[in-house]
Amino acid sequence: MQLGMIGLGRMGGNMARRIHRAGHECVVFSQHEKTVAEFAHEGMIGASGLPDVVARLRPPRAVWVMLPAGAVTEETVAALSDLLSAGDCVIDGGNTFYKDDIRRAKALAAKGVAYVDVGTSGGVWGLDRGYCMMIGGAKPEVERLDPIFKALAPGSGAIARTPGREGRDPRAELGYIHAGPAGAGHFVKMIHNGIEYGLMQAYAEGFDILRGKAGAHLPEAERFTFDLADIAEVWRRGSVISSWLLDLSAMALAEDETLANFQGAVEDSGEGRWTIEAAIEEATPANVLAASLFVRFRSRQAHTFGERLLSAMRFKFGGHVEPPSGG
Amino acid sequence: MQLGMIGLGRMGGNMARRIHRAGHECVVFSQHEKTVAEFAHEGMIGASGLPDVVARLRPPRAVWVMLPAGAVTEETVAALSDLLSAGDCVIDGGNTFYKDDIRRAKALAAKGVAYVDVGTSGGVWGLDRGYCMMIGGAKPEVERLDPIFKALAPGSGAIARTPGREGRDPRAELGYIHAGPAGAGHFVKMIHNGIEYGLMQAYAEGFDILRGKAGAHLPEAERFTFDLADIAEVWRRGSVISSWLLDLSAMALAEDETLANFQGAVEDSGEGRWTIEAAIEEATPANVLAASLFVRFRSRQAHTFGERLLSAMRFKFGGHVEPPSGG
Amino acid sequence: MQLGMIGLGRMGGNMARRIHRAGHECVVFSQHEKTVAEFAHEGMIGASGLPDVVARLRPPRAVWVMLPAGAVTEETVAALSDLLSAGDCVIDGGNTFYKDDIRRAKALAAKGVAYVDVGTSGGVWGLDRGYCMMIGGAKPEVERLDPIFKALAPGSGAIARTPGREGRDPRAELGYIHAGPAGAGHFVKMIHNGIEYGLMQAYAEGFDILRGKAGAHLPEAERFTFDLADIAEVWRRGSVISSWLLDLSAMALAEDETLANFQGAVEDSGEGRWTIEAAIEEATPANVLAASLFVRFRSRQAHTFGERLLSAMRFKFGGHVEPPSGG
Amino acid sequence: MQLGMIGLGRMGGNMARRIHRAGHECVVFSQHEKTVAEFAHEGMIGASGLPDVVARLRPPRAVWVMLPAGAVTEETVAALSDLLSAGDCVIDGGNTFYKDDIRRAKALAAKGVAYVDVGTSGGVWGLDRGYCMMIGGAKPEVERLDPIFKALAPGSGAIARTPGREGRDPRAELGYIHAGPAGAGHFVKMIHNGIEYGLMQAYAEGFDILRGKAGAHLPEAERFTFDLADIAEVWRRGSVISSWLLDLSAMALAEDETLANFQGAVEDSGEGRWTIEAAIEEATPANVLAASLFVRFRSRQAHTFGERLLSAMRFKFGGHVEPPSGG
Repeated sequence: MQLGMIGLGRMGGNMARRIHRAGHECVVFSQHEKTVAEFAHEGMIGASGLPDVVARLRPPRAVWVMLPAGAVTEETVAALSDLLSAGDCVIDGGNTFYKDDIRRAKALAAKGVAYVDVGTSGGVWGLDRGYCMMIGGAKPEVERLDPIFKALAPGSGAIARTPGREGRDPRAELGYIHAGPAGAGHFVKMIHNGIEYGLMQAYAEGFDILRGKAGAHLPEAERFTFDLADIAEVWRRGSVISSWLLDLSAMALAEDETLANFQGAVEDSGEGRWTIEAAIEEATPANVLAASLFVRFRSRQAHTFGERLLSAMRFKFGGHVEPPSGG
Repeated sequence: MQLGMIGLGRMGGNMARRIHRAGHECVVFSQHEKTVAEFAHEGMIGASGLPDVVARLRPPRAVWVMLPAGAVTEETVAALSDLLSAGDCVIDGGNTFYKDDIRRAKALAAKGVAYVDVGTSGGVWGLDRGYCMMIGGAKPEVERLDPIFKALAPGSGAIARTPGREGRDPRAELGYIHAGPAGAGHFVKMIHNGIEYGLMQAYAEGFDILRGKAGAHLPEAERFTFDLADIAEVWRRGSVISSWLLDLSAMALAEDETLANFQGAVEDSGEGRWTIEAAIEEATPANVLAASLFVRFRSRQAHTFGERLLSAMRFKFGGHVEPPSGG
Repeated sequence: MQLGMIGLGRMGGNMARRIHRAGHECVVFSQHEKTVAEFAHEGMIGASGLPDVVARLRPPRAVWVMLPAGAVTEETVAALSDLLSAGDCVIDGGNTFYKDDIRRAKALAAKGVAYVDVGTSGGVWGLDRGYCMMIGGAKPEVERLDPIFKALAPGSGAIARTPGREGRDPRAELGYIHAGPAGAGHFVKMIHNGIEYGLMQAYAEGFDILRGKAGAHLPEAERFTFDLADIAEVWRRGSVISSWLLDLSAMALAEDETLANFQGAVEDSGEGRWTIEAAIEEATPANVLAASLFVRFRSRQAHTFGERLLSAMRFKFGGHVEPPSGG
Repeated sequence: MQLGMIGLGRMGGNMARRIHRAGHECVVFSQHEKTVAEFAHEGMIGASGLPDVVARLRPPRAVWVMLPAGAVTEETVAALSDLLSAGDCVIDGGNTFYKDDIRRAKALAAKGVAYVDVGTSGGVWGLDRGYCMMIGGAKPEVERLDPIFKALAPGSGAIARTPGREGRDPRAELGYIHAGPAGAGHFVKMIHNGIEYGLMQAYAEGFDILRGKAGAHLPEAERFTFDLADIAEVWRRGSVISSWLLDLSAMALAEDETLANFQGAVEDSGEGRWTIEAAIEEATPANVLAASLFVRFRSRQAHTFGERLLSAMRFKFGGHVEPPSGG
């Protein structure tokens, strides 16, 4: 089938390629003319702008927006809503806040244009490994787009089947699900990222404690100097904590056990924050996910003002002076 | 080679079987005569007690203790230390606190008996999947016992190799490592379990928020009723958060998405607690691992006294009365 | 001066009384006719509805809304905005979300009506102890309303002066501040409540550990059975952790050291939640305030679904069965 | 009565002075001859060493050790135990781990020497404000030492009485309690300090969020620049969160609202750590107290290794590069 792809960055570009390789017709557009030309050279149809994308697609059209969440995506969806006709469909594959999806779907429905949100996981590995997709939208559109989702998804591959899934939706085993109405796809992806923060932080703390066990301030008989690369590797094999994130950690540690290329200022994106807000709206405790987010906030500061206040209080009640090195 | 195995429970029994299947000679003992007979029937050599185990092994002997950590293991190691001779070796494969290993290794060394601690992960799946092992002890013993470790380990299997490991210890890729001197094996296993708590809690919170999204107190347009079994399944395929714990979650949710067979009183074992104590000794922050442990403490109480005090304060300053249903 | 007071509940009623006692003229209104009559009996001017309140005040009018935050307050402010004239002023003394203040102030400004938000702390003790107020709004209105704030505030009283405040705003020492433009008052009050959650939780955990020290599962020689009422009392006197919340705890524990009248299902209100959202918007770590909020969420559930999932995973990987008593 | 005081630092020195001022006879000793001379000049009896302290006291003697917890205190108590006779008493007023008290009390009991542990709060303010004391030991000794405790304690002073304390131990209202057998005093003090960490962190986070509200990355209409000194001051007056720690914060902020003299590397001492270990031993959740401790650990590092691992994982799965400024 035909698909328009807006945005040819790290994610959108490889997704277009994977769709193209599966035999579908991709009309592609990016702000960067050169990039469009590159994709045209690979056999896709380059477009000169949004109107051109729309013009090159046969109705009912499907246009996939794969741009940074926020203003850029918002404007692109708005522009498409003007260009498209009843029966067409806009897909937002980025990391949009799910309440924006709900709002947009309602607005576009007024014009007869469908809106589908797709939370996409897979990162730079997706081209080869396939993309895990969590889809929100109305049933007819999600079914109409099925060939595209099938092309992007990893497929069942070598991963063992989960016993007891007989009678359940077979799409989940191929790597994509129809999670619910508009917004549901991005909500599930948002929680996915929230969990991701928690998993990463659990490994980070564990390796931190392992590394700290060589610390000179510990009793000598209780000090250990561990080979973290070997530990990450062995945990990949038969242990309860094997995971893809551990695979990646093992790679990073095998390259350089000191991780000297990284200093530890860790970015966060909307999903991690929205996950905590969703938890709060529901009154669901989320200690680990919140703590993981806060570690990232903290990692980007030399000191918080709060820590200065702690020192000030300690000085006031006990005359305690900060350690000279000052951390 | 020959190995004595003390303890034939869920872990020790299957480990003996795996060693036996690999062609080694297993002398087995358990408190339960019937169990010993059963293993003898499978072709292993049953023993009537610790002295009999020792008598049936040729020096230098190796006796693996696979019993609940704590008093039972402590007494068994002490008894073996009296029965064994210089050049023999005791292996503790349970979940012993690493400082006890350090102490025992020192005590046994005085008699010329070696002490090896093996942190073992794999659970009920180990018989088929193999056991991931983290080993502490002196180099000669760990090397002498290599055939046993090789038999127990999963081997390289179908798991992809980590790029860049050339020149590193090949044992890690087979599923076991020599982590350091006595105590180092259990320390690494302890951290493994600490991480395990954190990973589990990250998933638990994520699924909790997903489930809560159907909550009647949320605005109707923002409510979603998710199929948690399908979500767990789809995340196994191409997503950043795929892991073995997620595989297990997918199984449990495929069987019954409401998890009605579980009420949520969650046990914890020594490793999770010692992990936090180790972090504190090192002055390493461990927010996520600690929070994961506390969730389990909390899960086994109807209410904490602390929560009653919160209610009492609220009543005192604001006249706030607890909600009638009381949770 | 004259003031209209809408809402005569626990907070509004006593505030009207305190203003009245200070010699100001209070026009009061509540949904409950009986309550209005009661206050009229105390010497205030009862009104029959919002139009009547407005009619009984001389311009420039000032109407204080002291109602539950949310829809009721929103509608009341909207209604007043229709009834009032340019130069008049609406004061929201409830626990409104500060972004709603910003929005309302902008809307009312279009009609020439001023909007002042007052975060108020003091609870049921305020009538006698005075109310601590954090005020947002434009300078002229805040200054015009000064006699009202002065009447409500505790005044400098017996509380020791903070050294080094010479040259700073004297109002802070009387118990009220002009925190900034509209919204600023409620923002500061919101943070106040966030801190309150954290302080309460710190005491709650401390007393919980003290109480648990009598636990039968601890080594007998290390068990202590503490008199919690005496401990709370002694900490009020010369210790670093003396506070008003501790005073209240000491009262509650002196009445009944077991707090048997409370079961521990603890409500939370908007401020605690908004505080975390504000922290997230700023990328400021707030581990303690978030954890305090989550304790309250958890306290109102028998078990979370997440805890059930933990149990399910434990069963799947280790065959672990939940403890029979089930917490 | 007579008392020996060993250690004349910030705490011990002022305590000796307060005891002396109350009319008791103080035999004092410190490693620093000059200090001893100074106290002798103030009217106390200077001693040249531990034997001299013991020689100058009439039996039954009472010797108060006020030294840094750990090796120094341990050795001093051991030395005194050799010098003292049956019926004498050693008091440890430092921050000793309560399990050490239990052990010492048992050891000294064998010689007929009593052991009393006193957790002391009050910091540099104690000389004037009095010391809050939590006492562990046998009843007869604690009663014999009552005049000393009464001299050190703040007394009932101007602090309001807690209603409902009739019939309870009157000592709590004077600022000291007999908490239980040896170890109980330091256990209560330990929890006191654990709570202190939590309270401090709650204020720290609240002020941090207030300060961050001026952040340039927030929408302009929602930015506030607060006067933190005024906010701290106003909260002292009639608010729910008034406390002594807030008084101290108000002082520090009145001196310099930017706290530029402090950088935020915050020390922790044994009590904060032991509190978490006690919570873990009891299986009592302590999220806030643990998080408060971890903030201090984190505050003394530029970055954790765990944070570097987070960055490494992010790079591996998403090609994410750290922000150039790198925090």
